[in-house]
Amino acid sequence: MSKVRAVIALSGGLDSTVALAMTMETQKLKPDEMIAVTFYYGSKHGVWETRAAEKVRQFYGIPAVTNHLKIDLSASLAAAAKVSSLGATNPAAIPEGHYNDETMRSTVVPGRNLMFLSVLSSVAEASLGGMRQEGTVMVVLGVHQGDHHIYPDCRPEFVRAAGEAVCESTDYSVGLYTPLLNMDKADIVRAGIALKVPFQHTRTCYKNQERSCGKCGSCVERLEAFAANGVTDPILYEVQ
Amino acid sequence: MSKVRAVIALSGGLDSTVALAMTMETQKLKPDEMIAVTFYYGSKHGVWETRAAEKVRQFYGIPAVTNHLKIDLSASLAAAAKVSSLGATNPAAIPEGHYNDETMRSTVVPGRNLMFLSVLSSVAEASLGGMRQEGTVMVVLGVHQGDHHIYPDCRPEFVRAAGEAVCESTDYSVGLYTPLLNMDKADIVRAGIALKVPFQHTRTCYKNQERSCGKCGSCVERLEAFAANGVTDPILYEVQ
Repeated sequence: MSKVRAVIALSGGLDSTVALAMTMETQKLKPDEMIAVTFYYGSKHGVWETRAAEKVRQFYGIPAVTNHLKIDLSASLAAAAKVSSLGATNPAAIPEGHYNDETMRSTVVPGRNLMFLSVLSSVAEASLGGMRQEGTVMVVLGVHQGDHHIYPDCRPEFVRAAGEAVCESTDYSVGLYTPLLNMDKADIVRAGIALKVPFQHTRTCYKNQERSCGKCGSCVERLEAFAANGVTDPILYEVQ
Repeated sequence: MSKVRAVIALSGGLDSTVALAMTMETQKLKPDEMIAVTFYYGSKHGVWETRAAEKVRQFYGIPAVTNHLKIDLSASLAAAAKVSSLGATNPAAIPEGHYNDETMRSTVVPGRNLMFLSVLSSVAEASLGGMRQEGTVMVVLGVHQGDHHIYPDCRPEFVRAAGEAVCESTDYSVGLYTPLLNMDKADIVRAGIALKVPFQHTRTCYKNQERSCGKCGSCVERLEAFAANGVTDPILYEVQ
């Protein structure tokens, strides 16, 4: 196994897949220099995310098992899943419509990104061998501008503070990289097109079903982003 | 269940128990206004920590189950446990001697406190009900001055940055409280005496055995702190 240079959250969605592609491209990373981490956190759509992440990982040639960790956070995020409409333990329906609708607030999963980041940081620091070692590793999160309004843990203020916490926690051996921070969804699709991202393997829908619904906030935003680029989204939807 | 006002990491050790007592005293908290969280992270001494935490929780009258969460982080901290001598998956012996010895560096568990904090913060934010609610909750961590030298995630710089990350992650509905930050171990024992902390229920030893060893860095520091206060530590040791 090569020296790890980046540890990246990979849900198999549009954002994390483009973030992965951008990181490989800009940092000139080989597939075995990265560890992709796919989290299951007790969401309704979690099983579909994991399947998509597996396809994306294969596409990019990242070695299974050693370089693709699947970590179950459903105990750690149990309280959060209960109060979010995304939680499998919460009977509330996934809201349909636009992200700027008030109803979309129910999709907030309290503390999700800080917890993701804490795991990525621990994996990254541990890859350096425990006791203080030479070298640095980056942790990568696909947060972006479109998320900021309702999700506090996607805003630039959070990213700055959490990035500092990661640096201090690891004696500056780990740093946070958020390549999508100043992009909106249309920008992300545009970047993905340029990088030949396998959009057909990605999955964005919040609902627990194989075919994407096309109506939840997440699907609507994705469809609009492809339309803004004059490109057809290659995945199948219930509603086209 | 009363409104939650504090979510506190409780390992059943000296520090977290005194931090709990200080938080109850200074914040005038009733036992059911707190959630205590005991983490298992794949350490050699984890099973003994959990037993001690259970006794401390009972002593303070914190309701079981609803107000005492036991969360298994052994998957999330698996990489960290492998590189730390505290990890059950690491065959290295627990080092004996003083904390300022170079050998003690092997006891670092990369990312432990940031991960603890991320879970506490998520539980605290979720207790407010998910969507943006009125009110604030504090998360409490027993980090102290004696830890700073070898553990980056116990230093004031980390506490400041991580506290900001928690605030930003939760839209300033959760704040970090570290009552022991400027105390050393002798100060902590002194505060514990004043607060009538049940030292007999606490456990500090890093080794996987019922009776504390009296030789690991953690035991040595504890014994010295009691001696500095002219008080006998009520727990049993192999070596007195």
